[in-house]
Amino acid sequence: MRLVTYQNRARTDAARLGVWIDDRVIDVARLAASAGAELPDSMLGLIDAGPGALALLAELCARHAGQWPAHTSLWLDNVRLLAPIPQPRKNIFGIGLNYVEHVAESSRSLDTSAQLPAQPVVFSKPPTSVIGPGDAIEHNARITRQLDWEVELAVVIGRQAKGIAEAQAMDHVFGYTVINDISARDNRRAGQWIFSKGQDTYCPMGPCIVTADEIPDPHDLALTLKKNGELKQDSNTRHMLFKVPTLIADIASAITLEPGDIIATGTPSGVGAGRTPQEWMVPGDVIEAWVEGIGLLRNPVVSI
Amino acid sequence: MRLVTYQNRARTDAARLGVWIDDRVIDVARLAASAGAELPDSMLGLIDAGPGALALLAELCARHAGQWPAHTSLWLDNVRLLAPIPQPRKNIFGIGLNYVEHVAESSRSLDTSAQLPAQPVVFSKPPTSVIGPGDAIEHNARITRQLDWEVELAVVIGRQAKGIAEAQAMDHVFGYTVINDISARDNRRAGQWIFSKGQDTYCPMGPCIVTADEIPDPHDLALTLKKNGELKQDSNTRHMLFKVPTLIADIASAITLEPGDIIATGTPSGVGAGRTPQEWMVPGDVIEAWVEGIGLLRNPVVSI
Repeated sequence: MRLVTYQNRARTDAARLGVWIDDRVIDVARLAASAGAELPDSMLGLIDAGPGALALLAELCARHAGQWPAHTSLWLDNVRLLAPIPQPRKNIFGIGLNYVEHVAESSRSLDTSAQLPAQPVVFSKPPTSVIGPGDAIEHNARITRQLDWEVELAVVIGRQAKGIAEAQAMDHVFGYTVINDISARDNRRAGQWIFSKGQDTYCPMGPCIVTADEIPDPHDLALTLKKNGELKQDSNTRHMLFKVPTLIADIASAITLEPGDIIATGTPSGVGAGRTPQEWMVPGDVIEAWVEGIGLLRNPVVSI
Repeated sequence: MRLVTYQNRARTDAARLGVWIDDRVIDVARLAASAGAELPDSMLGLIDAGPGALALLAELCARHAGQWPAHTSLWLDNVRLLAPIPQPRKNIFGIGLNYVEHVAESSRSLDTSAQLPAQPVVFSKPPTSVIGPGDAIEHNARITRQLDWEVELAVVIGRQAKGIAEAQAMDHVFGYTVINDISARDNRRAGQWIFSKGQDTYCPMGPCIVTADEIPDPHDLALTLKKNGELKQDSNTRHMLFKVPTLIADIASAITLEPGDIIATGTPSGVGAGRTPQEWMVPGDVIEAWVEGIGLLRNPVVSI
């Protein structure tokens, strides 16, 4: 299933949980109510509810496909999609230097080592950095002249994980989404990345969460990033250095992963800092991050 | 006021908000109810409610001092204090290298520069790292052999801040608490600190939040750390490199600070990594972090 968090276009109603089917969004809680059942009206609520809730939702969708009960379906064009998890419970985990060619380009252009990391390089982006599809990436020229892009596959945790084996790690995955890990390259501080990667609007996320059952192999997905229609990143998740089960088991060896926690798994080569000459995002640009099987996340860059 | 989050000693009831007065904890919501008023039963609730709620609470405490209405007061010895904010809304911000002598000791013993940082060095610790007074700091010998301490004054944000001037920054402070910023020094990854500082139990916090009105100058507070009764850190917040208004305005220049967000303002010299010979925390140790005017935060180190 493709799950979305949506709102009416005027943004006057509260955000709700939906299933994206063809050109429609089916409201999860209302679909359940129409069948005399009950399902959560938020993404975190659905994740917390566990596999039984997801199975019920799939069953209701199959039963009503094409003949949606009154007041349960909306045209996709008539709603606004938000980040699938607009308010994560903790900072989003990011993984730096997780594609071999990106390690090389970073060592040429930034302050990182040319050696492949021996362990995952974990950093974080605050919930306040999250924006949804179509929302503006803010360009503040008083703070940065080096605003950069990074398309990434992001893993959404479904079940609490602490001290688990790699072999069990995939049982803790709820699904996958797309994150554009925006950085102000000139805002690193003593090497720490949170200020450069954690500013408001620096975490576009979406357009949906695709549940784990629909992505049997997260290490065989094409991913691209386009700036104003021009291809800048073009790779495949098979080139990840540390794979998804390793990332989950590694973080959870010491930090409890909670339902709804998100791990952005790193970006391939082709970022602005690594290009010759270097290239940055400026107001007016439109950035499109895409991961195969999940979808397209488009955001404009706007001056503030 | 000294505000606490407390629970019955058996930890069977939900956490509640209290005021710590002498040897008693006064339950905030029950005190209000006894006067026919209403106040929140959680720290984040009280912070969100704003200065009117805080003024009402102060007034009720003054009115009833020493003659607490039935069922509103408990012996401090009969309750368990938790971290004042057990579930922060985003990762806690930490500030690295913010005391001059600690910059020097770190450059000798760790991988940081001997130069004073030109801007605050921001990092983060997840909500899952937070523990309260008396809770165990976990020592996992499979992960670290270099578990270290850092006593710090922590600032609690009261009112949302974004793009504010330093001159207005203190208006956004709700109060202060103590944080022991635990690090596994051998767990840095490509220089990033979140894995080494963000593990479960690595953020002891408490014992209380002292409201801002009781600390007119946060840059004139003695702070110490003792290990098994021996003094290891002994300094004063006047030696901070970047002061509290600078830290708030700097982070809020790009990252929205929300009510209840916490900034740990850095540690003075005397950490284990900086000593000759180096010294680490091991199971059985008892660590006491103290900041003048706030209180003592005592935690045992326990093997897991």
